[in-house]
Amino acid sequence: MSPHEIWTLLTAVREQAPLIHNITNFVVMNNTANALLAIGASPAMIHATDEVEDFVAVSQALVINIGTLYSEQVAACKLAAAQAKAVGVPWVLDPVGVGATPYRRTVASALLRMGPAVIRGNGSEILTLLSSPRLEQGVSAGEGRGVDSLHGSEAALDGARRLAQDRGAVVAVTGAVDYVTDGERVAEIHNGHPLMARVTGLGCSATAVIGAFLAVESDAFIATVTALAVFGVAGEVAAGWAAGPGSLQVALLDVLYTLDEPTLQAKLRVAV
Amino acid sequence: MSPHEIWTLLTAVREQAPLIHNITNFVVMNNTANALLAIGASPAMIHATDEVEDFVAVSQALVINIGTLYSEQVAACKLAAAQAKAVGVPWVLDPVGVGATPYRRTVASALLRMGPAVIRGNGSEILTLLSSPRLEQGVSAGEGRGVDSLHGSEAALDGARRLAQDRGAVVAVTGAVDYVTDGERVAEIHNGHPLMARVTGLGCSATAVIGAFLAVESDAFIATVTALAVFGVAGEVAAGWAAGPGSLQVALLDVLYTLDEPTLQAKLRVAV
Amino acid sequence: MSPHEIWTLLTAVREQAPLIHNITNFVVMNNTANALLAIGASPAMIHATDEVEDFVAVSQALVINIGTLYSEQVAACKLAAAQAKAVGVPWVLDPVGVGATPYRRTVASALLRMGPAVIRGNGSEILTLLSSPRLEQGVSAGEGRGVDSLHGSEAALDGARRLAQDRGAVVAVTGAVDYVTDGERVAEIHNGHPLMARVTGLGCSATAVIGAFLAVESDAFIATVTALAVFGVAGEVAAGWAAGPGSLQVALLDVLYTLDEPTLQAKLRVAV
Repeated sequence: MSPHEIWTLLTAVREQAPLIHNITNFVVMNNTANALLAIGASPAMIHATDEVEDFVAVSQALVINIGTLYSEQVAACKLAAAQAKAVGVPWVLDPVGVGATPYRRTVASALLRMGPAVIRGNGSEILTLLSSPRLEQGVSAGEGRGVDSLHGSEAALDGARRLAQDRGAVVAVTGAVDYVTDGERVAEIHNGHPLMARVTGLGCSATAVIGAFLAVESDAFIATVTALAVFGVAGEVAAGWAAGPGSLQVALLDVLYTLDEPTLQAKLRVAV
Repeated sequence: MSPHEIWTLLTAVREQAPLIHNITNFVVMNNTANALLAIGASPAMIHATDEVEDFVAVSQALVINIGTLYSEQVAACKLAAAQAKAVGVPWVLDPVGVGATPYRRTVASALLRMGPAVIRGNGSEILTLLSSPRLEQGVSAGEGRGVDSLHGSEAALDGARRLAQDRGAVVAVTGAVDYVTDGERVAEIHNGHPLMARVTGLGCSATAVIGAFLAVESDAFIATVTALAVFGVAGEVAAGWAAGPGSLQVALLDVLYTLDEPTLQAKLRVAV
Repeated sequence: MSPHEIWTLLTAVREQAPLIHNITNFVVMNNTANALLAIGASPAMIHATDEVEDFVAVSQALVINIGTLYSEQVAACKLAAAQAKAVGVPWVLDPVGVGATPYRRTVASALLRMGPAVIRGNGSEILTLLSSPRLEQGVSAGEGRGVDSLHGSEAALDGARRLAQDRGAVVAVTGAVDYVTDGERVAEIHNGHPLMARVTGLGCSATAVIGAFLAVESDAFIATVTALAVFGVAGEVAAGWAAGPGSLQVALLDVLYTLDEPTLQAKLRVAV
């Protein structure tokens, strides 16, 4: 994948402004909506069981994030995922903190069976997802620590490849290096910056940005690599401007909005 | 309306610090509270059915925003609106994305019948509201695209005037130009900046700021024009400082807090 | 307490990255998580009744904040507080706006009986809590105005001492001066900046930071004084950088992350 291909897809998002339906957690709703707006997409955060099916049907992609679960939202996630399958809208699963409690494992297991096009998590989250059917019984192999990972992304790469094969999905493991695989192809993205881990929910924003690219690119592997590359470059540039995690969060939105082709070309470190 | 009148009302908000009760969406709660604090009001975000009636009774204005609906919140909105009517507290309705789903149209239709003093929306939202009783059956004329408008504010001006007459309310249509009407008077506000549309929920913050001015000015038309003028000027000044949508969101709060009379006078472009 | 002791505890948080379980309000979730990350802790915002007990059991401290109550969250707070007691995890109560409605007083009264290690509020909140058993009947002495205090922190100091003795807890009253007492010892913290009151939920972030220090220091009085001192110094430094409340919110996170021992020593104004 050349920098020019990545730039072309970013331009497509900016021109088409795809409508992205998010059912996400309360911690990151504002930043996720702003990241999608900054990149050129049109976000909507809609989670009532009374309306998610109607809204999925008019969206170009769906993003489901289990960060702050509760019973009505879980019901909404299932309705939305089923509708996405029915109407052919691609959807992304972010299994935040899936190893933290049996409840999360049960919910994630149910969603996993509903056919996400892409799954994005940190090393521990991906390894936890891999361990079904034990997952379905509330037991898991790769537990994290709360919502943080105890496993580097590299340690989860083999697991990610197997998960992709098992589920027929693209799997992204993010960390110091981001890996994306569809079970055969593997891409490595060496962009990003360590300070990004000190801002809450940037992984959630990255997942939402994957949704934006899925809306303009039917090859989910290419869409995911592009999203993580753009997000990583933007984070890296923003970290260069920032005095700490507060200003990084702000600068990231500015950079996603202003990112130009020369900067992208100069910074990209992606290998397939 | 002279710049001095607008300045006088802003000073009244800063001196009286009116208590504004918000039942709003999860995307904008933080920014809405911060916009109200920056302008000098005292915000509270309270949405439990067990307490909204008690809280409305001690508030100076109520703001209802349907951005992220769910069943318990809808119940709370209705209790709060009824109580506001009963105790004479003015309230503002923000029908976010009302055209997006039948559920939203049904909820907005019910709230519309409960006597808001002011309704603020984008062009598509206002046109959708106009189409009751078809609205009440989940059918609408002016559907938007998700939460975004497909109609410029000018295209909705005639509809806004009719909606104002039908409902006995002040109607504000915001966009490149903001229009405010009570069915007879019409004001145009040419402040604001296009980058504001790339920050999530600034319309929601504008609605909340209308609530703050309603608390200090009994003529809802004047209160609404003042609120949108102050918010537009602040957004315009902030956009001049900002490197993108992230820093605009931050700078807007700084400017709402520091706005002085000379800046307001120099920038205001309001015509009645 | 010497600046060096305070610095040592801050270093312990940064090194141990304690897992802090927050059940908090929707207004401040993002900023609270970011404040905890900035200071070096590992936050999780988890409020489903299906999982709070499991998560408390793996956490180092629990923070309960009643800012945006609703029925399921109240149930989660009670389950979590009971589990915290059962497994020996210290927990902090933030009774946001407890005087505002009978519902809040009833919920806070129930939580108060469940053994918080620390209670942090403004003057009006602390005086309201003091007035049980009348509190339990929805009647209170020291009502605030919405979520704002009508009482200076100094006016609530005697009440705080009695509340600490009655409940066997550390009580912190924050305001222009912060007071911390365990019923016998009293500390005064003269850090902070008036602009902090114009940013929503900084009191909530301070409460969460108390949770982080409770996780590394078993004397709850020392943990609380340290937390408020560090937070106050950071707020003061950040206010020096800020052009208004928007940039203060951002700068505070940067300063919490970058705070060094010389700055802490130069700024601290703590007396026990």
